[in-house]
Amino acid sequence: MPPDNLVHDLTAALTAVPLIDPHSHIDPLAPTAKSLDDILGYHYYTELAHSAGMGQRLLAKDADPRERCREIVTFLERFDNTAQHAWFAEIARTFLNFPGDRITAGDADALFDAAEKTFAQPDWEAQVFAATNLEKIFLTNEFDDPLTGFDTTRYVPCLRTDALVFKLHEPAVVARLAKATGIEVGDAASLRAAIRKLFEHFSAHGAKACAISLPHDFDPTASPAFLMLAELCREFRLPFDLMIGVTRDVYPGGVHQGRDLFDRGGSLVQYRDLFNAFPEVKFPVSVLTSAQNQELVAYSWIFPNVVTCGHWWYSNIPAYIGRDLTERLQAVPKTKQVGYYSDAYKLEFVLPKFGMYRRILAGVLADEFVRPGRATEAEAVDLGRRLLRDNVREIFDV
Amino acid sequence: MPPDNLVHDLTAALTAVPLIDPHSHIDPLAPTAKSLDDILGYHYYTELAHSAGMGQRLLAKDADPRERCREIVTFLERFDNTAQHAWFAEIARTFLNFPGDRITAGDADALFDAAEKTFAQPDWEAQVFAATNLEKIFLTNEFDDPLTGFDTTRYVPCLRTDALVFKLHEPAVVARLAKATGIEVGDAASLRAAIRKLFEHFSAHGAKACAISLPHDFDPTASPAFLMLAELCREFRLPFDLMIGVTRDVYPGGVHQGRDLFDRGGSLVQYRDLFNAFPEVKFPVSVLTSAQNQELVAYSWIFPNVVTCGHWWYSNIPAYIGRDLTERLQAVPKTKQVGYYSDAYKLEFVLPKFGMYRRILAGVLADEFVRPGRATEAEAVDLGRRLLRDNVREIFDV
Amino acid sequence: MPPDNLVHDLTAALTAVPLIDPHSHIDPLAPTAKSLDDILGYHYYTELAHSAGMGQRLLAKDADPRERCREIVTFLERFDNTAQHAWFAEIARTFLNFPGDRITAGDADALFDAAEKTFAQPDWEAQVFAATNLEKIFLTNEFDDPLTGFDTTRYVPCLRTDALVFKLHEPAVVARLAKATGIEVGDAASLRAAIRKLFEHFSAHGAKACAISLPHDFDPTASPAFLMLAELCREFRLPFDLMIGVTRDVYPGGVHQGRDLFDRGGSLVQYRDLFNAFPEVKFPVSVLTSAQNQELVAYSWIFPNVVTCGHWWYSNIPAYIGRDLTERLQAVPKTKQVGYYSDAYKLEFVLPKFGMYRRILAGVLADEFVRPGRATEAEAVDLGRRLLRDNVREIFDV
Repeated sequence: MPPDNLVHDLTAALTAVPLIDPHSHIDPLAPTAKSLDDILGYHYYTELAHSAGMGQRLLAKDADPRERCREIVTFLERFDNTAQHAWFAEIARTFLNFPGDRITAGDADALFDAAEKTFAQPDWEAQVFAATNLEKIFLTNEFDDPLTGFDTTRYVPCLRTDALVFKLHEPAVVARLAKATGIEVGDAASLRAAIRKLFEHFSAHGAKACAISLPHDFDPTASPAFLMLAELCREFRLPFDLMIGVTRDVYPGGVHQGRDLFDRGGSLVQYRDLFNAFPEVKFPVSVLTSAQNQELVAYSWIFPNVVTCGHWWYSNIPAYIGRDLTERLQAVPKTKQVGYYSDAYKLEFVLPKFGMYRRILAGVLADEFVRPGRATEAEAVDLGRRLLRDNVREIFDV
Repeated sequence: MPPDNLVHDLTAALTAVPLIDPHSHIDPLAPTAKSLDDILGYHYYTELAHSAGMGQRLLAKDADPRERCREIVTFLERFDNTAQHAWFAEIARTFLNFPGDRITAGDADALFDAAEKTFAQPDWEAQVFAATNLEKIFLTNEFDDPLTGFDTTRYVPCLRTDALVFKLHEPAVVARLAKATGIEVGDAASLRAAIRKLFEHFSAHGAKACAISLPHDFDPTASPAFLMLAELCREFRLPFDLMIGVTRDVYPGGVHQGRDLFDRGGSLVQYRDLFNAFPEVKFPVSVLTSAQNQELVAYSWIFPNVVTCGHWWYSNIPAYIGRDLTERLQAVPKTKQVGYYSDAYKLEFVLPKFGMYRRILAGVLADEFVRPGRATEAEAVDLGRRLLRDNVREIFDV
Repeated sequence: MPPDNLVHDLTAALTAVPLIDPHSHIDPLAPTAKSLDDILGYHYYTELAHSAGMGQRLLAKDADPRERCREIVTFLERFDNTAQHAWFAEIARTFLNFPGDRITAGDADALFDAAEKTFAQPDWEAQVFAATNLEKIFLTNEFDDPLTGFDTTRYVPCLRTDALVFKLHEPAVVARLAKATGIEVGDAASLRAAIRKLFEHFSAHGAKACAISLPHDFDPTASPAFLMLAELCREFRLPFDLMIGVTRDVYPGGVHQGRDLFDRGGSLVQYRDLFNAFPEVKFPVSVLTSAQNQELVAYSWIFPNVVTCGHWWYSNIPAYIGRDLTERLQAVPKTKQVGYYSDAYKLEFVLPKFGMYRRILAGVLADEFVRPGRATEAEAVDLGRRLLRDNVREIFDV
């Protein structure tokens, strides 16, 4: 079928583009998985297994990893329809040489053993980088991260600022800030001085972004710490990633990292004063729900400093990606779109997640540009490369 | 064309699955239509005809049924583009042997006569069950329904609780409750005792669910009666169907049952405390608008006790079903999805409504699973059967 | 490929339907562009160029038009992925004989010169009407527009009422109203008398609608002026176009007409009392965001006096049009849908905008009606003609 050939060819061309992944939770000192438990312990699997009926006992921190993996694999079948399951299946096939079509309960031990052996190879990190065609990947660093012991041109530091905006009432956070900066914060001036120290530290270590996740009802102008961060992003010429829409701890009985959800309210109009006050700061914006994508499209179409950024968490599902991406490609300047980020905790997830995105991107490029005669195949690949790589380089200056 | 063959084959395989319809408004003592007026009197037709210009005169209760049908059929042409019209066309072709391609004003009398004759057959109910491949169908029973005079394994009782939560200030409702339970409700304790009696009565008669429809701004924790219902669902092990988002009587001048609409506000986050407090109760959740589907997907993905349920009313339209279904299949465990219910008032509607759903489901299974190579055709049918039947059996214990 | 043939044939048949464009901002005394600057000065291009990095200097009113066009054309490449760019490319090819595939910075002067020459032809207006197959086009007239000097059967007046509802506190507006009507407004009675004069004036000059744009949180029943307008629409039998959802001046530093955005809140339920109180007034409703389309579908399905109307501004993008149109065609009577309007400031834009709409409409008709066997090709064209033309004639009585 010719249509499939086109999508196949576009996917292949996009797969040849070296990746710069602009948002992840990789620990640069332990970037790859050490065991199958590091893969299946990803919150997507623990929360889906739990949601599908798995109890909390084996999800406890001190439970036996092999037993936990057996249990999660047993429950996998109940969500083998999901996109999240497809990522695991691709990891099993690509990295663990899993030969079959379906992963069943009986495969758990073989997978566990294969993972142990595979991940122990001394050059495993390099193998994953090569297999993934990965060039650089952004980190999510706490403000007191020393940022040492790793290659910051490969693992690009990013200052995560949630604690500075939402947890400065906690003595432990103030103490960490004092330890990191040598400044005891007591008023606005000392807070500014301390945060400034952080920006100096991060800039000196090659940081390329500041980032924060925000609840749906956040009012940027009501938070002095948030505004200081914006001012320092301006001074240090760092883009400020806004990840908008998470409500924390909606299900306190959930698994680790599987307790947050969202509220349907909130609007980007809450950010109007911020966007107006900081024209020099680029704001790559992620929205948690597809329902907010039209706002993101319109605000990026109007505000020079607002940039669409990836497909976050609950919207990192093909149906939402395809729809949101199509809308962005039809109405936002192509230079203002950061296509995708992996949000990965372990490097092994970059391949299946970007693989999913590239297939969707190829489909949209085929349907919206090549087939209607708006672009040649080569031009469509150029557009895809822009979303995958060129814009990351330009917007984050890497 | 091979793609059409695939969808056709999948549809055929799904049509062979005996249906258990988990939500309807069937009167088990008069389950089928007696005349064409029982078909065209369905609020979907009266409201669309009225919206398209039909006056209220012939819509009055005491108007002549044949005249009313003539008038509705005359107006049918103004909405022959709609999905609702397609259900009627399928009923006309399947059950009334209507031979033509288009139903026009001149067909009204012949259809009326054909209906009269067809529906009068002594075994009509059995014929409809057979033609529909219907095994069981859930009812919507008022709390004081005696639940007698019908086979409760075929017509499964379900306790509808809107009156208990929203109308206990009406003396007539309190009187009905007293009559049904023998308890004069005056305080929380007597209310609990009365509702407990209802659960005992319904359970004794094979009820398999408790259900309620709720406005967009409902706060479950602010309603003692609602929380009592949840507690009794826990005790009696009944799923609690939540149908979220209806605003009653927005258009008081509308036709019977065609006066309710919705408000764009509201969020499932309002139910967080409920979902957290009742982990043992399964909550099959219907949302009135597609805009709330991503919430439903995410809450079902995280909360073990939240289950996606059907495509309700204003979302029971192919565009919304296709989108919402795709999102659910990509992100919610397959064991936690009740695919569809008919919401029918007469049995004749189960066939065209489930027919519509099966065609959409077949299309999604083809596009999302078979064509990308994620599942064989047989596996896709298994997945479809799960949504159509297996999950209803497991979740509602039938 | 046969599917493409079908869409191609349907598009061709729809292109043969003479257009009545029910909403534009055409100046009937200067309906066509005089220079390329009148085309590229359209806010869609200035705002996208500005969003993509173009400074404000050349966007100033007194900047040199040729230089401005050069600059905008230079920035065009940064948004050549967008639907808005495709309109310009179609204008360049169709009206300016642009021969190439891609417009680049080097093409600016040639395009400018071609436009100057082309647009100066004495019969240019007639040529555009003919090329566009345009029969009539609605205007947006300020309340004190004399409505003289043009053919009101071709350029149909429409009373725009934003100023009367939102700016009566401004002395300049009151003065304009006094000058237009001879009535000094001081109380409700004099306001009603003045607005009545406006309706008499507009009706005498063939006005076919009253229109207003509204913020997301507008409460119709709290505005006496708005209710007077509704009463006068009833008396003068004029449809009242409601364009719902714009938030003005969100980005004050933006380009002319590129400063407004929206808020995600608001619901059509706010209009329930209005729709109930004025059953005789037709309300063609436009919503600014696709997220409100399901409300529009449901309210039009229930309320006889609510009509779906076009795809407005931020929703005038193929992804939103396709989705919203499909939903409307599946659930709203076909007689209650005004398909599209150009919103154009210059006649040259009617062709590419309606061209985009017709291609999308043809695709939806093919997928939803012809291919599933619900309609023949001829019946599908009839349905399309209804949305494009017949409904405009019936609803606006032209």
